[in-house]
Amino acid sequence: MSVKIKIAVDAMGGDGSPKKVIDGIIHNNQSNKNNFYKIFGDKNKISPLIENKINKEFYEIFHTENAIKSTDSPLEGAKRGKDTSMWLAIQSVKEKQADIVISAGNTGALLVVSKLNLKMIENIDKPALSALWPNKKGMSVVLDLGANIECSAKNLSDFSSMGAALYNSLYPDEIANVALLNIGSEELKGNEVIKETYQILNDKKSVNFNFSGYIEGNHLMDGEVDVIVSDGFTGNTV
Amino acid sequence: MSVKIKIAVDAMGGDGSPKKVIDGIIHNNQSNKNNFYKIFGDKNKISPLIENKINKEFYEIFHTENAIKSTDSPLEGAKRGKDTSMWLAIQSVKEKQADIVISAGNTGALLVVSKLNLKMIENIDKPALSALWPNKKGMSVVLDLGANIECSAKNLSDFSSMGAALYNSLYPDEIANVALLNIGSEELKGNEVIKETYQILNDKKSVNFNFSGYIEGNHLMDGEVDVIVSDGFTGNTV
Repeated sequence: MSVKIKIAVDAMGGDGSPKKVIDGIIHNNQSNKNNFYKIFGDKNKISPLIENKINKEFYEIFHTENAIKSTDSPLEGAKRGKDTSMWLAIQSVKEKQADIVISAGNTGALLVVSKLNLKMIENIDKPALSALWPNKKGMSVVLDLGANIECSAKNLSDFSSMGAALYNSLYPDEIANVALLNIGSEELKGNEVIKETYQILNDKKSVNFNFSGYIEGNHLMDGEVDVIVSDGFTGNTV
Repeated sequence: MSVKIKIAVDAMGGDGSPKKVIDGIIHNNQSNKNNFYKIFGDKNKISPLIENKINKEFYEIFHTENAIKSTDSPLEGAKRGKDTSMWLAIQSVKEKQADIVISAGNTGALLVVSKLNLKMIENIDKPALSALWPNKKGMSVVLDLGANIECSAKNLSDFSSMGAALYNSLYPDEIANVALLNIGSEELKGNEVIKETYQILNDKKSVNFNFSGYIEGNHLMDGEVDVIVSDGFTGNTV
C-alpha cells in the first residue's frame, strides 16, 4: 500500500462551511485515491455530510466545537484558543501528523496562527498570499495578494524566491521567469522600493529562476512571465 | 451660426501619428459639426491626410516640425522647446485660443508641459490621469492612473473632488458616488494614507458628491460607484 498524502482540512472555515468543504473533499476523492483527509471541526455536522460518500479509509474526523469566525480580526481569531478547527489543523502540520493544511476560513487568522505555529523559513521575514492566475499559455504564480500592505525590497526579493519555489514544485522541469509588477517596463519607472528590488534581483542572478525585470498590468495575461511579484496592496486590488 | 467648441489637437503624438490622429478628427467630424479643430504639427504630412475629407471651415493647421518623442522622459520632452506640436497645442488653451487640448503623445510630457503652462486649480496640488471604465450599469470615472506614484491623503481627497467634477460634467443630473480603491471594505483595512483619506472624506461631507467608503478590486464592475479613487501606482496596474 502506498503512503497517502495527509491533508489537514479546517472544515469550519469559509462561506457555506462545513458542507462546501466536505463536498470539496468528496469531489477530490472521486479522482484521487492518494490523499488522506484529516478533517477538523464539528463531528455532528460533518459526519452526516461525508458518511457513505467516502470510504472510511480515506478520512478521519477530529472533533472540536470551537471555530474562528470570518468576522474576527486576525488577532481575535488567534485568541479564540488552541481548540479551534483552524488552529488544530495547523498544529497537525507542526506535529508532522499532516503534510499540508487547507482552510477556506478567515485569511488573516490563517496567516497569524500559521506564523505562530509553523514559524518562517530562515531568512524569510514575511509570509505571502499566492494564487495561480491563468494566462494565454498556462498559469502564473502571483504573490503577494494581500498579506502585506507595505513591503520592503527585501520582502519583494523574498517573494520572488518563494514564488519561484512554488512554481518549480508545480512545474519541476521549468525554470521560472520572475517579474516585478510595475507601472512601466523601463528601469527608471516605479517607486523606490520597486527600483531597489530590481537592483537586488538583477545583481543576485539566482540559479533558481530567471529575473525578467518589470511587467505592466496590461501584460499579465501574455504568458511570458511565470511568477509575478507585487506588494500585497497592489496585488490584491489587481 | 453657433459658436463652435475649439479643440487643440497635437497631431504628432502617439503611435501611427499623424494619420491615426487625423482619422480620428475625420471620424468625429462626420457625426459632430459643432467642433473646430486647431491641428498642431507638420503641415506637409497633415494636409494630404485631411484635404477633401473635411470642409475647411472645420479646421486649421498650425505648422511646426518639432515634436516630442514617445521615448523622451517627461523633462526631455518639455526641454524640446516651445515649438513642439504638443507645447503649442497646450499653449493655445492657455491663451484661450482653444477650449480644450487633446494629445495621444508622451503622457509624462503632456502632464509636465500642461502643468507648466496651465498651472493647477487653486488648492489642488497634483494633476491626475483619469479614464472612463465600463461597469455593469454604465461608466465609472477612475483616477489616478499613473501620474502620481505616491499620494498623500490630501492628494486622494483632491482626486475625489476632481473625479466628481468630471463625472458631473458628463452626467449633470446625477450626484456621484465616490469610493476609495482598497483591499477590503472594512474601515480598519488598508494603509495609513487610505485610512486618513477615509476620515477626511467622511468628515467633510461634500455637497458635490456622496462618499461611499471603500471599494474592493472585485467590485469595480458592479456599477455601484461612479468615481473610483486610487494612487497612481495601484490605479495604473489595475
